[in-house]
Amino acid sequence: MLGVEEVLKEVLVKVTPRREEYEKVWSLITRLCDKLKGVAEEHSLKIDVEVEGSVAKDTWLAGNRDIDIFMLFPKSLPEDFIRKYGLLIAREAVKRVGGSYYETYAYHPYIKGLIEGYEVDIVPAYRVEPHEVLTPVDRTPYHTRYVISKLTQDMKNDVRLLKQFMKGIGVYGAEIKVGGFSGYLCELLVIHYGSFLNVLRNAMEWRPWRTVIDIEGYYSQQELRRLRKVFGNSPLVIIDPVDKTRNAAAAVSLQRLCEFKAAARMFLENPSIEFFFPPPPKLLKPEDYERLRLRRGSTFLVIEIPCPKLPPDILWGEVYRSLRGLRRLLEKYEFSVLSQLAWSDEKSVVLFFYEVHSDKLPVVEKHVGPPIGAGEREESFLRKYLIENAEEVFAGPFIEGGSWIVFKRRKISDLKTLLSERSLEAKHGTHIREIFAKKQHRVYVNEEVEEILRRHERDDFNVRLSQLLSGTYSWLKVACEEVVNEEKHVGN
Amino acid sequence: MLGVEEVLKEVLVKVTPRREEYEKVWSLITRLCDKLKGVAEEHSLKIDVEVEGSVAKDTWLAGNRDIDIFMLFPKSLPEDFIRKYGLLIAREAVKRVGGSYYETYAYHPYIKGLIEGYEVDIVPAYRVEPHEVLTPVDRTPYHTRYVISKLTQDMKNDVRLLKQFMKGIGVYGAEIKVGGFSGYLCELLVIHYGSFLNVLRNAMEWRPWRTVIDIEGYYSQQELRRLRKVFGNSPLVIIDPVDKTRNAAAAVSLQRLCEFKAAARMFLENPSIEFFFPPPPKLLKPEDYERLRLRRGSTFLVIEIPCPKLPPDILWGEVYRSLRGLRRLLEKYEFSVLSQLAWSDEKSVVLFFYEVHSDKLPVVEKHVGPPIGAGEREESFLRKYLIENAEEVFAGPFIEGGSWIVFKRRKISDLKTLLSERSLEAKHGTHIREIFAKKQHRVYVNEEVEEILRRHERDDFNVRLSQLLSGTYSWLKVACEEVVNEEKHVGN
Repeated sequence: MLGVEEVLKEVLVKVTPRREEYEKVWSLITRLCDKLKGVAEEHSLKIDVEVEGSVAKDTWLAGNRDIDIFMLFPKSLPEDFIRKYGLLIAREAVKRVGGSYYETYAYHPYIKGLIEGYEVDIVPAYRVEPHEVLTPVDRTPYHTRYVISKLTQDMKNDVRLLKQFMKGIGVYGAEIKVGGFSGYLCELLVIHYGSFLNVLRNAMEWRPWRTVIDIEGYYSQQELRRLRKVFGNSPLVIIDPVDKTRNAAAAVSLQRLCEFKAAARMFLENPSIEFFFPPPPKLLKPEDYERLRLRRGSTFLVIEIPCPKLPPDILWGEVYRSLRGLRRLLEKYEFSVLSQLAWSDEKSVVLFFYEVHSDKLPVVEKHVGPPIGAGEREESFLRKYLIENAEEVFAGPFIEGGSWIVFKRRKISDLKTLLSERSLEAKHGTHIREIFAKKQHRVYVNEEVEEILRRHERDDFNVRLSQLLSGTYSWLKVACEEVVNEEKHVGN
Repeated sequence: MLGVEEVLKEVLVKVTPRREEYEKVWSLITRLCDKLKGVAEEHSLKIDVEVEGSVAKDTWLAGNRDIDIFMLFPKSLPEDFIRKYGLLIAREAVKRVGGSYYETYAYHPYIKGLIEGYEVDIVPAYRVEPHEVLTPVDRTPYHTRYVISKLTQDMKNDVRLLKQFMKGIGVYGAEIKVGGFSGYLCELLVIHYGSFLNVLRNAMEWRPWRTVIDIEGYYSQQELRRLRKVFGNSPLVIIDPVDKTRNAAAAVSLQRLCEFKAAARMFLENPSIEFFFPPPPKLLKPEDYERLRLRRGSTFLVIEIPCPKLPPDILWGEVYRSLRGLRRLLEKYEFSVLSQLAWSDEKSVVLFFYEVHSDKLPVVEKHVGPPIGAGEREESFLRKYLIENAEEVFAGPFIEGGSWIVFKRRKISDLKTLLSERSLEAKHGTHIREIFAKKQHRVYVNEEVEEILRRHERDDFNVRLSQLLSGTYSWLKVACEEVVNEEKHVGN
């Protein structure tokens, strides 16, 4: 087993950009910024152009292809104006440095330029004081400045280690799809705890819905306790040094928080480079699927819908909403859910996967009615099952535990019927609901799922499904192998 | 529809014993009491012989074959002595009036004499003041005296109506098998509320675990509230006028209480003689069983054991304990239970019946482990499923909802295996546990249950099963038919 220092040294060599990379990035940035300012001036606009993000802060990972450039407009201009001119200037500038582009959307619409292999986000924002922030993106320049003012060279290395660690264990990224830690959050953590290893040591002790980190000490202990309630939905609160009313960790889900906590402990106990660079995932061969399914004796289900055209965060918000909604629908109709998974290529298809106990339920269903002595409700329950719907009743009404019960014909006892006919009873995102309303969803059960696997044989869907059905976290496997090897060693 | 008065008149004719019956019963009693006193004197014992129960109180139902006779011994004699001589005297007296007998057991062992078609319980007890009661049976003479002192002729009729009503709807009897209302309780209710109809009207308003009836007004309102907690396990409390520390309704289960409440309301709304004399129950023909089962799509299960030789109350106490215990066992292993039923002929066999969702569960099982950050427990969970029992694991450990989970091979996924191998994990009565320990139980699943039905084709088991699977309470059906007929009538 390598010592932790050796591991970190090895990782650092891999994640630190080389000199050529710096030169290439900054040469491109200089050219592009010149063009942006030039085009603006042609429109008689005086804007500031600033590099933001990990490139500006020198915390990017070697090989990273993302660059963030902000065009800062005076706050006197209306939002419509800066949106229009922002797009116009960015498009023209990208063209002039020989790149291509497409329009996309975060808070504002903005331009993603594809230049010399880099993806350059060119984002319009306002030049304002921190307390004047008009749109969420206006805060970014202050994030950049804050981080630059705090990070030493060693700490930059530690940010890179932390980012790569989070990437390796799958908790990196504040997008809704991931629900994890942003690059800025990694920087804040290193600033607060001083080093990569200290972040890990402290993260082990984090308590979801309890831990509050207030780097700049804006609040008293008492205020922080009260504040916890304001940020009640977030399992982790890290007060943004640039805006003390903002939780910089708002995107972090309980899932990713717990994964990070657990992986941090595992790494400190069994340091290994594989936490940072996990082994390639196994793929589930479609021809192995049927055997795997029969061995488990459970029922597999895939619901396939065409992917609505939406920005990724909106899309994944809706996808996860439907994933939860459909799960609750299954459970409402008494199908026991073992596991679930949503996947999308963000272009053509969204897949919802569930593993349930069985695709059939007994036709008979025990239905619990009102308590004895409930007057009106009792009356109408008895009327319903003795007279009006008597043909649906197998037996009863009986009394059980002080309430009326009846054994009746189950409305839906088949999984496919439920999802074909009742999928609109589930909670969905707006656009996904439309797709279900138009009956554009297709349902695959058990052996039919093999078709889906064949279609996505090389996709990340296969990787995810393979992990769900026969894997574990790769970092957990690595840690476990370390322990086994160690024990063998001690045994010899 | 008959009016309520007409119905009661008709019932009363059927339940009031005729003159010949009075003469026959009292002639037998006189002869037997003489013999009892005579035999006692031959042993130089001076005992009182008293008639108790419904015959003494003139509240028995026409055709009733049960007589209670108490032999009252002086309190100076030891319990062993009165038991020995009680049995000896009773046996001899029964012989001398030409009857046969057998020994049975309530609090004391006692003799059940079979004389001229009557069953005469001859019970030894102490002659004591109410506050000196040495054994539970010593209270009986005071119950008899209290009831006699309070009942008018009309009220005796009303007791007979109430008893027959309770018999008709199946809530009559304080034995553990029934868990219902004793004859004495029927008398107390008529004494308290004044008439049969008033008992029903008031019972409609009883609230389980709230209602306390204190006929003699021993307690203040405040004391009664406190007292409720003392009798906490009983859903109904009726202070015994003869012993203010005793709940005369202790035997009444929530089930029977609710059934009585509901039937009382139904009767008042739709009076019918069929509440008192229900139509003969349907039997389930064994040849119809398989069709009925397949139509429901559920799984039927019968566990058959030889009946342990025990007095009925002990037996049924154990039977119900095992019925609950086995149900919990099924649920612990994730078999969803829809309905249950225990039956015994009290001689040779006990049957436990369950209807469950399915006889098979998926081999894969989701097992929830300790929360993230649980230290030792986390350590051993991960060690167990990553290293020690890795071959049992399909996938995981994963994190879900802040805890570790693992998908593993289910230990028992088959109903028959569970009940054949793990039935001792359930809670059982002592004697029934022994039977399971000796593997004397047999398990029948689905089509195999038909064999059981053939064997018990004419038994009460068949009636009970038929009701459970395709019936309802007969009084509910009657009330419902009344409503339907009335509506037709109004419609015409």
